[in-house]
Amino acid sequence: RISWISDIIVVVSPENIETMKTIIEKYGHKRVTVVEGGMTRHRSIFNGLKIFADNQFSSHLLQKPEIVIIHDAVRPFVEEDIVTKVVMAAKEHGAAGAIRPLVSTVIASAADGCLDHSLERARYRASEMPQAFLFDIIYEAYQQCTDYDLDYGTECLHLALKYCKTNAKLVEGTADLWKVTYKRDLYAAESIIKDNLSQQVCVITSGKETLAQVGSLLPEFLKSQIKVETISISLSKNDSYLQNIISGQCYNFVYVNDKRCAIQETQELVDMLEKSNIPLLCPVVLILVHLDISENNSFSIGMEDITTIKKFARETKKKNILVYGLLIQYK
Amino acid sequence: RISWISDIIVVVSPENIETMKTIIEKYGHKRVTVVEGGMTRHRSIFNGLKIFADNQFSSHLLQKPEIVIIHDAVRPFVEEDIVTKVVMAAKEHGAAGAIRPLVSTVIASAADGCLDHSLERARYRASEMPQAFLFDIIYEAYQQCTDYDLDYGTECLHLALKYCKTNAKLVEGTADLWKVTYKRDLYAAESIIKDNLSQQVCVITSGKETLAQVGSLLPEFLKSQIKVETISISLSKNDSYLQNIISGQCYNFVYVNDKRCAIQETQELVDMLEKSNIPLLCPVVLILVHLDISENNSFSIGMEDITTIKKFARETKKKNILVYGLLIQYK
Repeated sequence: RISWISDIIVVVSPENIETMKTIIEKYGHKRVTVVEGGMTRHRSIFNGLKIFADNQFSSHLLQKPEIVIIHDAVRPFVEEDIVTKVVMAAKEHGAAGAIRPLVSTVIASAADGCLDHSLERARYRASEMPQAFLFDIIYEAYQQCTDYDLDYGTECLHLALKYCKTNAKLVEGTADLWKVTYKRDLYAAESIIKDNLSQQVCVITSGKETLAQVGSLLPEFLKSQIKVETISISLSKNDSYLQNIISGQCYNFVYVNDKRCAIQETQELVDMLEKSNIPLLCPVVLILVHLDISENNSFSIGMEDITTIKKFARETKKKNILVYGLLIQYK
Repeated sequence: RISWISDIIVVVSPENIETMKTIIEKYGHKRVTVVEGGMTRHRSIFNGLKIFADNQFSSHLLQKPEIVIIHDAVRPFVEEDIVTKVVMAAKEHGAAGAIRPLVSTVIASAADGCLDHSLERARYRASEMPQAFLFDIIYEAYQQCTDYDLDYGTECLHLALKYCKTNAKLVEGTADLWKVTYKRDLYAAESIIKDNLSQQVCVITSGKETLAQVGSLLPEFLKSQIKVETISISLSKNDSYLQNIISGQCYNFVYVNDKRCAIQETQELVDMLEKSNIPLLCPVVLILVHLDISENNSFSIGMEDITTIKKFARETKKKNILVYGLLIQYK
């Protein structure tokens, strides 16, 4: 998703390596190398770093990067903006990491399970991910750190400070960087994905005047009902504007036309969507609105159309494109 | 909900006092006194405590309690178990509070926005709510604390330690004690409520043999499909067993009967539900299953029944009881 990242190392526990490889292949992820994890967080990260320095771990020859970004898979909503910020800060300071304000006060407990002292909340921050480092700094830190660090440590910024005297730059991150930890977090994550997917709908009309009118009224109406970006364009096989919208992660399409079924044109749209690979990540919703304004429209012809659309939709569903048909007969 | 709590003080910002009073009245909450909050957390809590000690703040005369529990409204899922634990611990130690493991490492930042040091995650805990105190200890602490404490402090356990030399007992809380802070947390909270509501379904049958059979097969079937507690009983106006189930916060009912519509009996059930006040908190779902095994059942009679149920359901919906009808004609 971020073009200036040259390699992505995914560190996975041994029993999940095959599953991860299947996922990478299925979704067509590029630039990804899978590495076997260790027993602890730091041992896993160290394994991931070794691939750039130590060829015994890899049959690929990956070029040693200037900057390495470390991220948790349990933080799925990382925006390019924060990645850029930590990378730029790491370039300048040697290390950088995202932080967030503390939601609860942090306390230290004594051996008897009673309060020892509490920390002044305003002076402390939660250390989140992503973090970025000059490769040489973090690799040096991991090479020097003790078994105790590797087994019980949790903080890469701490290793850079302790072993390379590098005080990481702290960068304020967004709330969405939180760790998906509990079952409730899965619901929260789902809600964020749904919110994002429903932000944009693309309305396509096929040129004719009556349709163009619908195509411009519909966006107006949608705007007043839900938070949407609406775009009215005419469908054309190699329309670069439409290509841009699709590759910009638009997942909702309304196609207004007046040809009965217009399966051929719809097929072209489906082909474009399929080629873009976006249906691999999330289902794409395509609503076909067929305006039948001919004199001789009839109920039985309508039923035929519905059958055709149903059959078509069954095929596209396999490609994760959900087609819905709306037939409007108007005499 | 917890019978041994004698008074509940709700501290509310001045502009929301009327709204809060409306809510308390609407949902029939008892033992509640509304107090005006201050500009900061500690000032608000102090205002809440004063009502037991200082009559100028209240026209009620509330008896000074032995133990006071402090809780945040943004933590809606507090179970009686943890409340009991912190209260018992406060009785013994003078102060007690719920804690949770840290999800992220906590770090201190220097004045230049760089890392100063990081804390060893395993040695620290997030301080959550509820907390409980001997009233005299926490009130004494608030009376002694400085304006700086009142304006910038966040931790009641800290005040008890600083001003009354009381080391609070720390009690491990459940994950559901987290603070509803971000928009995503609302979705997470909704999911927890839905999970809880769908834990239990009560199947009611009206005695006859055929129905009793359905009434016992249905729970068996439901058990294998979803996580439910199922109870088969016969509907009777003053059934104390059914009363207990209703007051135990069961929100889902299936009523199997063979009388056409059986509106009268259903009305009795609806009356019981209404009297229990549980529909005030969340919608109650009542599914009427009408088994028509008579020889002369017909489609048109079925349609009449549906119309009757629809009309009935429209009325009960106003009481937050959602009635659905399922008519099974069996010849």
